[in-house]
Amino acid sequence: MISKNQIKQIQSLHQKKFRDQNNLFLVEGIKTVTELIDTAPDLISEVFGTDAFINNVSEKLLRCNIKWHVVSDYELEQISSLSSPNKVLAVCNYIKPPKINLDFGKNFSLYLDDIRDPGNFGTIVRLADWYGVSAIFCSSTSCDLYNPKVIQATMGAFLRVSVIYESLQDVIEKHNAKLVYGAVLSGKNIYKEKLENGLIVIGNEANGITENNMRYITHPLTIPSHKENGSESLNAAMACGIITSEFFRQLTQ
Amino acid sequence: MISKNQIKQIQSLHQKKFRDQNNLFLVEGIKTVTELIDTAPDLISEVFGTDAFINNVSEKLLRCNIKWHVVSDYELEQISSLSSPNKVLAVCNYIKPPKINLDFGKNFSLYLDDIRDPGNFGTIVRLADWYGVSAIFCSSTSCDLYNPKVIQATMGAFLRVSVIYESLQDVIEKHNAKLVYGAVLSGKNIYKEKLENGLIVIGNEANGITENNMRYITHPLTIPSHKENGSESLNAAMACGIITSEFFRQLTQ
Repeated sequence: MISKNQIKQIQSLHQKKFRDQNNLFLVEGIKTVTELIDTAPDLISEVFGTDAFINNVSEKLLRCNIKWHVVSDYELEQISSLSSPNKVLAVCNYIKPPKINLDFGKNFSLYLDDIRDPGNFGTIVRLADWYGVSAIFCSSTSCDLYNPKVIQATMGAFLRVSVIYESLQDVIEKHNAKLVYGAVLSGKNIYKEKLENGLIVIGNEANGITENNMRYITHPLTIPSHKENGSESLNAAMACGIITSEFFRQLTQ
Repeated sequence: MISKNQIKQIQSLHQKKFRDQNNLFLVEGIKTVTELIDTAPDLISEVFGTDAFINNVSEKLLRCNIKWHVVSDYELEQISSLSSPNKVLAVCNYIKPPKINLDFGKNFSLYLDDIRDPGNFGTIVRLADWYGVSAIFCSSTSCDLYNPKVIQATMGAFLRVSVIYESLQDVIEKHNAKLVYGAVLSGKNIYKEKLENGLIVIGNEANGITENNMRYITHPLTIPSHKENGSESLNAAMACGIITSEFFRQLTQ
């Protein structure tokens, strides 16, 4: 059983404003919440799960001193941000921003310039995790990492990849990035360029890299298309995946 | 003005059952509908647009003998499948299945085995268009191409890429595919294999390639990850993009 007040409080966390006020966000689904309990129990404030879910993990919850509530499917539907809730929802504390010491001479990383679609944003965090990019950067106009749809799309990768909101200029200056690659429509063929460690800027879904940030790009790159008059562009997350894959291939394989 | 009956009929096309009954589907948004009018006017049955949109294209509509209706924003909201409708909706006739004459000795293509997410499915059609894959195949359990969310995600690429629903066995036999690559978790490193033209099978978002289809795979491929215990997988469309990019690179660049 949960109170009306609790329901209201959890529902409020669907919105960025209230997440920021409380420093709390939601993680949903058996797989990711189980991973959370196993690998980052300190992040969890409270768990709301169905009888079956709680029974399965109650020992761990006790051991980690995590507060839990058994809820009905109906109650879960009321607090969930998903159209089909999946057995459990965890209210979590914001992740403390880690100290990032990136050496762009030895690593590559991503800068998301105004990526707005939560599915794209979360999928890119998942991609970064796959290729061992431990921290990615993004403009303040990009999606909120704690948007429930972003968290969902990362499939747990938000636990391993740090996401830092900072201006491109600050990232370049703080981490002394010399090579700043940009995904554009008329740059050098990514398959034929010799790629090196550096920062890769991915632009907005509709408008690409912002004018203000274009001036920092030292190496414009393009994924060549089959012909001139086909699709005008690839999906932004897809383009980011193809580019990241090519950097990974050239630098590590 | 549109009648209640028209609204009901268009709304029914949000569902596959009624699309199949009427052989009609919906295309929405200024960009794609304009492209439709320019490149495939014969597909269009009727256009429902705001005053401003219709004014802009009325000459073309007249020239192509396309029936149109001016609708208010409110009416558009009622018939649209989008949460934020974008000025115009076109009711279109199903695309006639083209005769596909694929030579897998000279081309590569994709087989989508049970891809369920409309965003993934549409993004893959857009990807195929980018890399010049003119026809892709998929299992009958995959998304419906005419699902409005799929059409939306293709960004017009459904006009250039043929999507054929057929069993994997039939595709292999009909087109005499000798090399059947499969995206799996423990195959050969895609970056190190010498890839050749053939059919590439991409599996379901959660479960990968179905057991029944696994036996047709002659060359299992894997996108190597940075380390053992990171993300378990990439998003299915993302994986498809990275693999397609690597085939394109090795075969054409």
